[in-house]
Amino acid sequence: MNSLLLKNVVLGGKNVDVLIVDGCFRSIAGRIDVPAEKVIDGGGHLALCAPFFNAHVHAAMTLLRGYADDMELFTWLQEYIWPIEAKLTGEDVYWGTRLAILEMIHSGTVFFADMYWHHDEVIRAVEDTGIRAAVGLLFICADGKLLERNEHANRELLARRDSLSDRILVTYAPHAIYTVAEPVLRDVAEEAAQNNLPIHIHVSETAREVEECRAAHGGMTPIAYLDSLGILGPRTVLAHCVHLTDGDIELIQERRAVIAHMPCSNMKLCSGRFRYHDAVERGGCRIAIGTDGASSNNNLSMLEEVKFAALSAKIESNLPTAGKASDLFAAATRGGAEAYGIDSGVIAEGKPADAMLVELNHPRMIGDYHLEANLVYSADSSCIDTVICAGRVLMEHGRIDGENEVLDAARRCCRRLARA
Amino acid sequence: MNSLLLKNVVLGGKNVDVLIVDGCFRSIAGRIDVPAEKVIDGGGHLALCAPFFNAHVHAAMTLLRGYADDMELFTWLQEYIWPIEAKLTGEDVYWGTRLAILEMIHSGTVFFADMYWHHDEVIRAVEDTGIRAAVGLLFICADGKLLERNEHANRELLARRDSLSDRILVTYAPHAIYTVAEPVLRDVAEEAAQNNLPIHIHVSETAREVEECRAAHGGMTPIAYLDSLGILGPRTVLAHCVHLTDGDIELIQERRAVIAHMPCSNMKLCSGRFRYHDAVERGGCRIAIGTDGASSNNNLSMLEEVKFAALSAKIESNLPTAGKASDLFAAATRGGAEAYGIDSGVIAEGKPADAMLVELNHPRMIGDYHLEANLVYSADSSCIDTVICAGRVLMEHGRIDGENEVLDAARRCCRRLARA
Repeated sequence: MNSLLLKNVVLGGKNVDVLIVDGCFRSIAGRIDVPAEKVIDGGGHLALCAPFFNAHVHAAMTLLRGYADDMELFTWLQEYIWPIEAKLTGEDVYWGTRLAILEMIHSGTVFFADMYWHHDEVIRAVEDTGIRAAVGLLFICADGKLLERNEHANRELLARRDSLSDRILVTYAPHAIYTVAEPVLRDVAEEAAQNNLPIHIHVSETAREVEECRAAHGGMTPIAYLDSLGILGPRTVLAHCVHLTDGDIELIQERRAVIAHMPCSNMKLCSGRFRYHDAVERGGCRIAIGTDGASSNNNLSMLEEVKFAALSAKIESNLPTAGKASDLFAAATRGGAEAYGIDSGVIAEGKPADAMLVELNHPRMIGDYHLEANLVYSADSSCIDTVICAGRVLMEHGRIDGENEVLDAARRCCRRLARA
Repeated sequence: MNSLLLKNVVLGGKNVDVLIVDGCFRSIAGRIDVPAEKVIDGGGHLALCAPFFNAHVHAAMTLLRGYADDMELFTWLQEYIWPIEAKLTGEDVYWGTRLAILEMIHSGTVFFADMYWHHDEVIRAVEDTGIRAAVGLLFICADGKLLERNEHANRELLARRDSLSDRILVTYAPHAIYTVAEPVLRDVAEEAAQNNLPIHIHVSETAREVEECRAAHGGMTPIAYLDSLGILGPRTVLAHCVHLTDGDIELIQERRAVIAHMPCSNMKLCSGRFRYHDAVERGGCRIAIGTDGASSNNNLSMLEEVKFAALSAKIESNLPTAGKASDLFAAATRGGAEAYGIDSGVIAEGKPADAMLVELNHPRMIGDYHLEANLVYSADSSCIDTVICAGRVLMEHGRIDGENEVLDAARRCCRRLARA
């Protein structure tokens, strides 16, 4: 039996003790005095909060952070990102993912939905750190056929699926409608349903994608097209959605698909503006928050992303009441967990022990009138003291085991990539 | 003679030593071995960078952080902000300003241009901490006449002006065109010129302000109206400017006035969108960055503000090449210094020793291809290791003297305000 006792932490404005056993919250009470393998004392100034679930990221791209910025999309992709990505080895993906996980833990994230190559290395990084992840079976076609390396890697990942830690889940991750052929998308819809796995796809990210889709598919929007292929459903996560029609919003809501919103990336690449108020507050669509990869953000901080999401929602709708802090905090925590079918993201007895301890004795947390408003609008990673994932302490009082080794190895990868 | 020696810090990609004497950079060289009162060793992993100059803030409003968010402007002002502000005592302003300074130092800021009440308390907070500040002579009218308490406070501040530390400068801070009568604005223009002091004013912040100005002043925009009163000049800082016509941009550029851009506040209150590309990149206007007060942001982090500024510039102009990291870093550092006539914001021999040391051995700073891109797009306050202002160390390896006393006192002020 694995046990962790949190003494004197702040929950809902009260000081409580929290007992965690075998990865779940066993009991939350005014005072708990039982022996535990590990005790963390919150001293009355660490708040126990739901942690972040990052709904869309390309983790290993941390190695490309700051490599190329402030450029036209196609210059950026063709002259910088694709050539350097082509040089990434499995070892790079391992250390890039380790670096991403380090950064995510520091900012209170316990889960990320990844879409990238070298699944084995991503899984090794996840296993070595104790974080949660959704690893995507990648689908990209050339000449209408699935790339052989995707087919091979996906077959291998599906085969070892049952042997993975239960912190790791597998998703179907067809890249986008313009990179995956129609029959392959149909197959994905069918197989994902058979295997009861989520689908994770980029969609309606650029104006060009929408135009080309309408031209090729009898006027259908990308959302309508995906629906016609059976892709839209309650286990589907739609990344970006910055070019939605009213009809798209209705369809997403009816199918109970989840939108993964990445405001920083959408602004940085000028992809488009997500209609948060129309889609979520009026349209009732389910929502989660992601950071996208570090080459288009350029960090993986959900704390920053929720502020961008809230402020963008306001200026986009011209309503200061849109994008409320409490709603965006929910979207970035349990919203992301629910999107991938993980029963977590809330602090309650019986639930998985995923949590962050937030330092209240911190300049950014005073005034101390509303904790969630402070988290969304004021906090940064320096406010996050401790992170717990499935009952295991990933960061304690700002310290993560093996941090320097990761930084050194990742820096070596960057140096080699820049030279090569 | 006051001396500080920085050993083995990173500057322009090279490892150097830096000698600071009497508040200025005396020499920067590969190796300096002289006795100094204090030595800080950068260990080859702390980068010496220009620090931030916050061009517009209401510092003591940190006490109102998170008190009221996500509301219509007038509900927010009339039902929440004004009633609680009316309860602020001089003691509150002192501790609120101390809290603001704590937060600013942690995120690499060495200067703030304040616009608030209780000058004596603001000055006491600045003197007690060693930061730089511009303290505004506040002008607000009722029934066409300057408020008596403003007149009194301004007279006192002007009288003691010569006895202030040379880190503190005085500005003329008429609140806005809709709160200050025309003859008072004319007097401000004249007096500021006579005393050779900067002017710091809110302008073109809301659509309503522009409409009312046009109606009252023969179709003139607020910018044209200020120009007609002699307010626009190279020592004038125009806060917000989110409703500019092409003519306004030309006028600001011709007069060499400086725009203080506050993207977070403008988004959060839905004030409007600053035309960064048109005003700065095409129009050639001078630019600085501010955070505004904590009740409309809700933090004072220039690191966050430059990212919002860069990303807003891109999505607003639909140009991913707009709002380049290096330009926004310059705006937030030397741009703010120049706006207030301070010869600082660059790391060079002979210049005032204002600097921050940035931790390069940090997940957010790897990839390490472009330091300024990492600072603008990736860093948060956890990357700032040490802050130096006029040769004095305000924060060393994350520690600031007296931090807990400030947090406790500020929290007590918040509790009393919430109850009162």
